[in-house]
Amino acid sequence: MIRHTVVFSLKHAQGSAEEKKFLADAMILAKIPTVRKFEQLKQVSRKNDYQFGFSMEFDDQAGYDTYDQHPDHVAFVRDRWKKEVTDFLEIDYTRL
Amino acid sequence: MIRHTVVFSLKHAQGSAEEKKFLADAMILAKIPTVRKFEQLKQVSRKNDYQFGFSMEFDDQAGYDTYDQHPDHVAFVRDRWKKEVTDFLEIDYTRL
Repeated sequence: MIRHTVVFSLKHAQGSAEEKKFLADAMILAKIPTVRKFEQLKQVSRKNDYQFGFSMEFDDQAGYDTYDQHPDHVAFVRDRWKKEVTDFLEIDYTRL
Repeated sequence: MIRHTVVFSLKHAQGSAEEKKFLADAMILAKIPTVRKFEQLKQVSRKNDYQFGFSMEFDDQAGYDTYDQHPDHVAFVRDRWKKEVTDFLEIDYTRL
């Protein structure tokens, strides 16, 4: 199991239609066949400035690679993520 | 549901007895009554420098507060975390 997480902030105003659309359109990532347990989350700690998080799991590195290279992921990063996300941090976990 | 996560690095050498002992002793946190789904994780992304993660869930803010104020948590932070952790970031999530 590899858990891929990314915590991020958007350039859109909080509660805006643009923010809602970004999150709704990001659900295309959940449909990539190797993605398990896809979650969209709200970041609520006051100890950092990020607004949202995505979390998903892959069975193995091959599943992760399939996601990473999938045309829907590549297009989402190119057309939406790079244009609408202002700051982010990727954190990936496996079991100890 | 509130998911409390912390990604961190230890001052100990990788694979050392001190590292193992820190992680083993941290399992006391899992026994605090309001803690759900406690996980110890290995951080594997090359896009950040953290080594480990803890993740846990609380039913609500009251459960989080109980954990935060619990003597076993307070003592662990004071006696171990502040002395053995070199860098960390807390990220907390709720459902969108």
